[in-house]
Amino acid sequence: RSLLLLPGDGIGPEVMRQVRRYIDWMARKRGIEFTVEEGLVGGAAIDAQGVPLTDATLEKAKAADAVLFGAVGGPKWDGLGFDMRPEAGLLRLRKELDLFANLRPAKVFDALVDASSLKPDIVRGLDVMIVRELTGGIYFGEPRGIEDLGNGQRRGVNTQVYTTAEIHRVARIAFELARKRGNKVCSVEKGNVMESGLLWRQEVTALHRAEYGDVELSHMLADACSMQLVRNPGQFDVIVTDNLFGDMLSDEAAMLTGSIGMLPSASLGAPDADGRRRALYEPVHGSAPDIAGRDMANPIAMLLSLGMALRWSFDLHAEADMLEQAVQNVLRTGMRTSDIMQPGMARCSTSVMADTILRELD
Amino acid sequence: RSLLLLPGDGIGPEVMRQVRRYIDWMARKRGIEFTVEEGLVGGAAIDAQGVPLTDATLEKAKAADAVLFGAVGGPKWDGLGFDMRPEAGLLRLRKELDLFANLRPAKVFDALVDASSLKPDIVRGLDVMIVRELTGGIYFGEPRGIEDLGNGQRRGVNTQVYTTAEIHRVARIAFELARKRGNKVCSVEKGNVMESGLLWRQEVTALHRAEYGDVELSHMLADACSMQLVRNPGQFDVIVTDNLFGDMLSDEAAMLTGSIGMLPSASLGAPDADGRRRALYEPVHGSAPDIAGRDMANPIAMLLSLGMALRWSFDLHAEADMLEQAVQNVLRTGMRTSDIMQPGMARCSTSVMADTILRELD
Ligand SMILES: CC(C)[C@H](C(=O)O)[C@@H](O)C(=O)O
Ligand SMILES: CC(C)[C@H](C(=O)O)[C@@H](O)C(=O)O
Repeated sequence: RSLLLLPGDGIGPEVMRQVRRYIDWMARKRGIEFTVEEGLVGGAAIDAQGVPLTDATLEKAKAADAVLFGAVGGPKWDGLGFDMRPEAGLLRLRKELDLFANLRPAKVFDALVDASSLKPDIVRGLDVMIVRELTGGIYFGEPRGIEDLGNGQRRGVNTQVYTTAEIHRVARIAFELARKRGNKVCSVEKGNVMESGLLWRQEVTALHRAEYGDVELSHMLADACSMQLVRNPGQFDVIVTDNLFGDMLSDEAAMLTGSIGMLPSASLGAPDADGRRRALYEPVHGSAPDIAGRDMANPIAMLLSLGMALRWSFDLHAEADMLEQAVQNVLRTGMRTSDIMQPGMARCSTSVMADTILRELD
Repeated sequence: RSLLLLPGDGIGPEVMRQVRRYIDWMARKRGIEFTVEEGLVGGAAIDAQGVPLTDATLEKAKAADAVLFGAVGGPKWDGLGFDMRPEAGLLRLRKELDLFANLRPAKVFDALVDASSLKPDIVRGLDVMIVRELTGGIYFGEPRGIEDLGNGQRRGVNTQVYTTAEIHRVARIAFELARKRGNKVCSVEKGNVMESGLLWRQEVTALHRAEYGDVELSHMLADACSMQLVRNPGQFDVIVTDNLFGDMLSDEAAMLTGSIGMLPSASLGAPDADGRRRALYEPVHGSAPDIAGRDMANPIAMLLSLGMALRWSFDLHAEADMLEQAVQNVLRTGMRTSDIMQPGMARCSTSVMADTILRELD
């Protein structure tokens, strides 16, 4: 069992440190051993190696059973060219590992219902899974670039492209997931304005008819979906959508929970001959440079990302359950990192939160 | 003073009828006369004239001082080809009238704070103005279309394009608006992933430096903005963004108010030699086919769209103020259409709501 840890920038390293501790705990107490390697990505890689992701690190990522990713970026690297941004390291990983399906659960923890800016009745029990296409669309389409037109005028271009095959493979993941959950998929696009969205709708409909007729399928325009997530998020089970809409809608959905420091995500590739999928796991939150190095970050999203890895890449469901249960228990005691602090609770640091979760396991 | 009314489909005609009544009232009581024409658009035009917008109607729209637009679309026209959708009528109007700046206020009425799905503390007093670019970007970029690749594979393409001039003219509107409000502009793009977004950021920054240094400018990624609108919408004053992001973010912001049946919008063109701008005004809500013809729709967004027209196209600020004040007063009496109904209030129909607002004016 091999894991590559890519802590990245900002709070990435300090939350990744807590992941190591759970890995050690599994070895010590459960006899489950991982081969763990570590590498640089993002700004950290730019500083040390001159690029946001070296070929060597990419090869390690390809060889590992799963990659755990912290977060990248920060003001320090803001002025750099387009291919030298910290984000370029993450985008390269997604593309080269062909991680086409990004699973972003937006789940409200009972103990944190009040952390949401939405009324408790609207978000209590919320559990939406957003499946975002991750290797296509406007993130990667050609032609792209900025062109000088003379006269002080420039022109910026990006291209949104989707093919039948790209749409089917991500929709398949959504239908399969729905079968294990609420059995409902809502497919989201702007087919009233974009032909690529119309194709998306038609292809999802065709796949549904051919293979997933038992799953309830609906369609929604992206603007309507961004509204409905605010109005009544409980109507959704699984949402499947393209790379750009998925970026925005999954962040919006995450924020409904009021606690983005709690939310993990998984990015999955196609299964190989042995049924093994390449996979990368990362917290939904970013690198939060403003609080980096101050032992203030919430380590839970990163720990739960490990939990998703245990489930999806290693079939270690018991160990994933134990971790998730420990998190729930600690939340119930009233312990809170700053991002989820509420009146009447106890504020704690990154390391104290992780200590308590680990103690809870013993 | 000339107005073209395009009621469109669904609840469009029944809310537009109430607009006529305020126009009559202004003539009768204030001696302010409008030449009013009416035309078909969307599904209604498809049914009667074979296209979602005829050239003749387009000419009328170009000739009018302002266009009032209801809403378009409905299941009846869902199966039609891409250029025959009801929406194509609206998109053609925007493009041919060169209505590049879409102003979408998201404002919470004091009496309706509880209608929001967000906590009252988060939305009380909310007043955000979204300025959305409306004639460029992925809505109109070429190449576009669906291509057959053989082997059952198809490929859908759309193109996002922005030029310096397109970015400057819409950003200018945002800066000018901000000066009359909270003096803050937040420019939103995905410049970390899209070159067109990077150009957007650079050009807004350059224009700011050259001409609007007195306005506070910030930049935000579109995914972060969709989060921040949920977490803390009060941080925003004016948001300026592209066509597609603006579509989603303005709908999300609208829904924060809990009462999208209340929200008007304005779409403005460039000023001509006399300083006159072409303009179209429309409610943010859609055609709501499910409640069409049942005298249930909320007429307030449509009436307030007329209010925006009075302000922006006719400089009739007193009449706009009177209308807005009447709406506020009626809401305070507890009268509510179904969409904004709350326990303890009185449910009323479209026409009763409009009757009451008109009576309030006398
Ligand atoms: C860091 C950035 C490139 C990335 C994206 O836009 O996909 C992030 O926002 C995300 O959602 O994972
Ligand atoms: C009807 C549709 C074409 C339109 C859009 O996408 O612009 C609508 O959603 C809007 O926001 O006015």
